[in-house]
Amino acid sequence: MNSKYQPEPVMKITTTLVTIAFIGTTSSVSADVIVDRAISETQVLAAQKAWCEALIDISTTNRMKGQAAASALAEKVIDSAYGYQIGVVLFKPTVTVNPHTFRTTRESALSYFVGGNPAYPDDKGFALNDWTKCEIDNRAILIIGNTASTMGKVHLTDKNGNVTSVDKSWQFVKDDNSQLRIVLHHSSLEFTGE
Amino acid sequence: MNSKYQPEPVMKITTTLVTIAFIGTTSSVSADVIVDRAISETQVLAAQKAWCEALIDISTTNRMKGQAAASALAEKVIDSAYGYQIGVVLFKPTVTVNPHTFRTTRESALSYFVGGNPAYPDDKGFALNDWTKCEIDNRAILIIGNTASTMGKVHLTDKNGNVTSVDKSWQFVKDDNSQLRIVLHHSSLEFTGE
Amino acid sequence: MNSKYQPEPVMKITTTLVTIAFIGTTSSVSADVIVDRAISETQVLAAQKAWCEALIDISTTNRMKGQAAASALAEKVIDSAYGYQIGVVLFKPTVTVNPHTFRTTRESALSYFVGGNPAYPDDKGFALNDWTKCEIDNRAILIIGNTASTMGKVHLTDKNGNVTSVDKSWQFVKDDNSQLRIVLHHSSLEFTGE
Amino acid sequence: MNSKYQPEPVMKITTTLVTIAFIGTTSSVSADVIVDRAISETQVLAAQKAWCEALIDISTTNRMKGQAAASALAEKVIDSAYGYQIGVVLFKPTVTVNPHTFRTTRESALSYFVGGNPAYPDDKGFALNDWTKCEIDNRAILIIGNTASTMGKVHLTDKNGNVTSVDKSWQFVKDDNSQLRIVLHHSSLEFTGE
Repeated sequence: MNSKYQPEPVMKITTTLVTIAFIGTTSSVSADVIVDRAISETQVLAAQKAWCEALIDISTTNRMKGQAAASALAEKVIDSAYGYQIGVVLFKPTVTVNPHTFRTTRESALSYFVGGNPAYPDDKGFALNDWTKCEIDNRAILIIGNTASTMGKVHLTDKNGNVTSVDKSWQFVKDDNSQLRIVLHHSSLEFTGE
Repeated sequence: MNSKYQPEPVMKITTTLVTIAFIGTTSSVSADVIVDRAISETQVLAAQKAWCEALIDISTTNRMKGQAAASALAEKVIDSAYGYQIGVVLFKPTVTVNPHTFRTTRESALSYFVGGNPAYPDDKGFALNDWTKCEIDNRAILIIGNTASTMGKVHLTDKNGNVTSVDKSWQFVKDDNSQLRIVLHHSSLEFTGE
Repeated sequence: MNSKYQPEPVMKITTTLVTIAFIGTTSSVSADVIVDRAISETQVLAAQKAWCEALIDISTTNRMKGQAAASALAEKVIDSAYGYQIGVVLFKPTVTVNPHTFRTTRESALSYFVGGNPAYPDDKGFALNDWTKCEIDNRAILIIGNTASTMGKVHLTDKNGNVTSVDKSWQFVKDDNSQLRIVLHHSSLEFTGE
Repeated sequence: MNSKYQPEPVMKITTTLVTIAFIGTTSSVSADVIVDRAISETQVLAAQKAWCEALIDISTTNRMKGQAAASALAEKVIDSAYGYQIGVVLFKPTVTVNPHTFRTTRESALSYFVGGNPAYPDDKGFALNDWTKCEIDNRAILIIGNTASTMGKVHLTDKNGNVTSVDKSWQFVKDDNSQLRIVLHHSSLEFTGE
């Protein structure tokens, strides 16, 4: 069989992609099918919300089922929410130090969230801090067709009620399944002027 | 003064670009500004409608004020609706013949619409055919974030009521003024099977 | 297990996506990883060449192994070269007639290439015409970052040496595997001025 | 004259956009014109270098000609290097504090660089710190067709030889003049683990 032809792409995703729109009599247009792959504000807000929920889920799983279960969940979260499969993610987590400030690989990102990787001895596992609440406070959102970027505060509350506010930027792209994926994530503690 | 710094970009366009959106209490998000530069279906339909109206306008202007006025208007239409300023437009008009089938330059496109250019002796001026009606009948629209493409029929009626139906594809991109511009336009008479 | 997390994306494709570039001493930059997902002219020309080769392959397979084998191959070609999995392809083949001028679905495209579908009785199977040669003669190529469009002639030679020249436009996008896929294909016989 | 038609776009930029490429005999393709608007790694590195040079220029101008001249230059830099004309820039400078952490407007960005704006009393003018050297140390670059993002360190040296290293993310888009503009800029001091 001809090796230069790939197997058939997953057709199951089609339904999530196609928006059938019968245009009414108020329009002279009668397109049978409209496929809109632009990123919408609603999708961006949903992706941010999913990130917050995942952080809480990992914290809760760690508390209830231990670190191994939390780590397994973190892998699923990374693989569904980030874009490491395209080769790199520009990820600067909140509390990393040199020489491991940037986590451009999947393995280094997993270590940041759940720790336990001797290659990154400083990683305590950011997602294991018993987070109970994660609030997104966007300052601005820029959607440029096939990519969307956000900047603002994220307020994290731990089980003792202590709130940590961080400055966070995210850039998302849409994958072939029409799902948003994080390709840039820069998080930093607030500058206090010393 | 430092020559590598350009003059300030036109700020007047900002208002047409920014969509201020205060997100209500139904959302946990309070972004100050949302700028959405994705192409919308509404913008695509409006750009198609504008193309049809421009064709009729040029025909009417030719009838009322003559070819020179029609040609002046056609220049304005081309410069506002097409993307020749980026260097090329992929334009295959309906009734061009070799060796001038494709009109990738502004001058050759103008000649197609209003004729009168000795370099293109076969051009009679397509927009001068006393068109009285132009109907768009989209078969499908594909929006991929920063570009949108359409395919379907366009039905043109002349002053004698004769209707010409063509198969037409358009690809649009958004310029810095957030205006759609045609970068691909392929039009062909219907194949009749001889 | 948490249903909102998808299985891990295929990591095998990563290697085809990442371009590791160690920047030399002539530069003050030392990026570890450069991932470039822009479409290149080389990729566009390769995708066009693959389309031509596939057409000849289907013709040859039909001659050697019959219509069923040709049809099976055509399915593979469509699934690897076109973007039907995103929901629609804007496809106006060369010799289709109303009411089936446009082939926006995978099934209707397959019928055009190999025929045999009672829903499309006029389809003789364009790829079964014993094509022996397929030459691409681009007039212009426009690459706009994440999409590329081409316009020009394609010259097809059958086994009797008869050449058919068509005017053809293609628009390509890059999928998550970094492979180009056709999302718009408008082909038309040359207008002869009657 | 018809108000819905804009004046002719600047044609002068065309030359900077068009790449005429006569494809040689090694290829079966003979496209007359190739226009490639994808962002290249070279353009990204040049845009970063220009940002560093501009910072030094403003510092030098301030030292030589005073704050007014530095401010005038800073306006030119902002208008040529950032994308405020599209409505917003996601800008989190290195040393801003609440409630003015984010500088999504041109005015607030100018205040950050050169100070002197009573609306932002904490702004001392970051570009006025007698910077003498600016080195870019990219960790990763991601080019997604029409947008490019970078993440890495930037090392700034003042006139006393003191070096400040910051973690910096930039996202660039290409404007209609084919010039890269910053639409996201997140800068933060290195986390030291207290």
